[in-house]
Amino acid sequence: MDGVGHAPTERRPEPLVPGLVVHKYGGTSLGDVERIRKVATRIQRTVDRGHKVAVTVSAMGHSTDQLIATAREVHARPDRRELDMLMATGEQVSVALLCMALQHHGVRARSFTGAQAGLLTDGVFGSARILQVDPTPLVRALEQVDVVLIAGFQGVDAAGELTTLGRGGSDTTAVAIAAALGAEECEVFTDTDGVYTTDPHLIPSAAKLACIDYDEMLELAALGAEVLHPRSVWYARRYRIRIHVRSSFSFQDGTVVTALPRAQETAMKTDRPVTGVALDDQHARINVLGVPDVPGVAGRIFGALGAAGVNVDMIIQGVPGAGDSRQQMSFTVPRDLAGDAVEVVRPLLAELGGEVSADDGIAKLSIVGVAIGSTPGVAGRLFAAVAGIGANIEMITTSEVRISVVIPKLLAEQALQAVHDAFDLGRVAGE
Amino acid sequence: MDGVGHAPTERRPEPLVPGLVVHKYGGTSLGDVERIRKVATRIQRTVDRGHKVAVTVSAMGHSTDQLIATAREVHARPDRRELDMLMATGEQVSVALLCMALQHHGVRARSFTGAQAGLLTDGVFGSARILQVDPTPLVRALEQVDVVLIAGFQGVDAAGELTTLGRGGSDTTAVAIAAALGAEECEVFTDTDGVYTTDPHLIPSAAKLACIDYDEMLELAALGAEVLHPRSVWYARRYRIRIHVRSSFSFQDGTVVTALPRAQETAMKTDRPVTGVALDDQHARINVLGVPDVPGVAGRIFGALGAAGVNVDMIIQGVPGAGDSRQQMSFTVPRDLAGDAVEVVRPLLAELGGEVSADDGIAKLSIVGVAIGSTPGVAGRLFAAVAGIGANIEMITTSEVRISVVIPKLLAEQALQAVHDAFDLGRVAGE
Repeated sequence: MDGVGHAPTERRPEPLVPGLVVHKYGGTSLGDVERIRKVATRIQRTVDRGHKVAVTVSAMGHSTDQLIATAREVHARPDRRELDMLMATGEQVSVALLCMALQHHGVRARSFTGAQAGLLTDGVFGSARILQVDPTPLVRALEQVDVVLIAGFQGVDAAGELTTLGRGGSDTTAVAIAAALGAEECEVFTDTDGVYTTDPHLIPSAAKLACIDYDEMLELAALGAEVLHPRSVWYARRYRIRIHVRSSFSFQDGTVVTALPRAQETAMKTDRPVTGVALDDQHARINVLGVPDVPGVAGRIFGALGAAGVNVDMIIQGVPGAGDSRQQMSFTVPRDLAGDAVEVVRPLLAELGGEVSADDGIAKLSIVGVAIGSTPGVAGRLFAAVAGIGANIEMITTSEVRISVVIPKLLAEQALQAVHDAFDLGRVAGE
Repeated sequence: MDGVGHAPTERRPEPLVPGLVVHKYGGTSLGDVERIRKVATRIQRTVDRGHKVAVTVSAMGHSTDQLIATAREVHARPDRRELDMLMATGEQVSVALLCMALQHHGVRARSFTGAQAGLLTDGVFGSARILQVDPTPLVRALEQVDVVLIAGFQGVDAAGELTTLGRGGSDTTAVAIAAALGAEECEVFTDTDGVYTTDPHLIPSAAKLACIDYDEMLELAALGAEVLHPRSVWYARRYRIRIHVRSSFSFQDGTVVTALPRAQETAMKTDRPVTGVALDDQHARINVLGVPDVPGVAGRIFGALGAAGVNVDMIIQGVPGAGDSRQQMSFTVPRDLAGDAVEVVRPLLAELGGEVSADDGIAKLSIVGVAIGSTPGVAGRLFAAVAGIGANIEMITTSEVRISVVIPKLLAEQALQAVHDAFDLGRVAGE
């Protein structure tokens, strides 16, 4: 398996369990005994309608954070293997308690650890990838019971070591289980009721999307939309599993993440080339001025940053003036790592010449839509909207389905509203 | 494997790991992060002296009780399989945190679940028995690290289901690990500093025993001495593993549970036939009066009690008077089940005739010693001591290594002191 965005579609097996429905419940939905009971009631209703259900669960409420906090009391930098051994208990507690709650309602149910459910991963503790899911244990169990419950976020490697999948791992478990059992859809129950055109806390006219394409969702997830983890979306796209993101506190439909059909895509090219707008103010800009304009300088700087574990997001290199042998470059890094980045770059500049400074007064605004790359004028509408509120665009990056601009943080929310309006995203709700 | 007391001694393998020491730490010893650090320091000292260490741990403090309480919020009678799934997390948390604490001290250590450590059990959820321990995973790990940490109380059955071993299960895990690795001794660290001639909270002159025979310890454990679980002692006797019971809060020697050599046994026959005295006030007496003296009556009564899950401890059947066709019987049951016992017996008596009543004003006092069966006069000294404080003996049972008498609860502590004195147990401390 390689990174997000480069995997081919794989054949999804034929349905192995007739009438199977796949659910995933996040930690908030399982925050206490009362909520566990409510989740059990929802699953019971699904069983009562004649379905078999495969349920993936996260750890209860903030229990994973509590386990990590205790670990850090014992060791400032706990070993990843031991941290996985510790954290894997959180989902095991959830799965057992939810199973008991179902049995209390008279529902035939059985719980599984990741290992018992056949989730084989690589051996990268803390961010393992699922290599294979053996459907046999769950298929056999579903011959005897109506509900199987799988501890999310965890698996086992070929050597029998417990591994965890990293942030958002339970979503990925749910999608992988759906794929292995040949299910077409995975319902992800969470504390929001779907995916919005933008953050509704910032823009009250933001509208819930009825559906969104995998590629759009991947971009939004990568931009920090916390509703789904990019890896789960990538896995869903690979096996063509629809993800229905919906609220665990209501019975309304949420947002379906899927491959949008060509006809709809065409319609969007004219009417609505942009599906969503995202704002990220968790990055800082690092400015490097006056470095020599000779080959290898950028390589040394970004090599050193990579070695120090500083992820670089956007990069621009300034065009030097005529006869100028010095140039400038800017790049963005997670705000928490801005100090580290400066410390990594400064000693290099002592040798090369030049200056480095950090600026955390920036924000990144991105528009996302599968038709962006093939629709003329989208970039122009974006730039005009941003200019219309007097914000200067400091950096730009684009992909086939996304355009991002860096603007002053002080004007970020105003720009978000202007861009949301410019692409008529508020009216999606009425459609 | 059959019950306690009937298993032959099995060959213990040759030591598989040179210099191996086996430790077990109970929940109190791991009650919080500070105590976990202290345990890590103790293990580190053992490593510094050139040993490899296999450590079995219980769940932290009262965490198992908390998990059970949460389960009962969800389901009044939780399924045993799901309860095992839930409870097994407690030891997994301990083992990971203790491993991190060791690594914080620079000790090379690795944690294992019961399943990873090769503990194969039968499939009886909640009170599984260890069928086999595959030493390979731990032996291999000890080639790379100095300390392996095994989650106690848990294993996995042949179908891959998580099981727990029931109360005291971590002691049994520790002894089984010692046996599988060919270790001669297992050090059990607990919150008391050894085994006493009787409960030192009741009798201040009670003395700590330097050593005690497996059979004596089995009787004391069965009588409710909470320092070791009978099954762990039985397992230790079977494989001839010495258990050193000692305090996790000091470095003093505790009590060694072992097979006492013949010479010492002979010495005891003259000087000290009794090793310990135990008092149990957690039972009630059920009196059944006026039932027909015909065959099959006792069978019906005790059959019904067994079917209702009421364990019967001591039984006496009264000798009927001349020409009397009615008889009486008394038996003891756990005090909590006295009401159940009466409810089970009453409908039978409606048919057979007779009356039933419960009396929880009783206590059982027992003397234990391997030489009791072969030493004349021991029973006489016991009865005289009890009579000396004016207590009436209501029931008596004996075994090769134990004599138990039922006496009024009000006189129980006075009788305990008298018996302890009568067998000169207080002076053991000065020997």
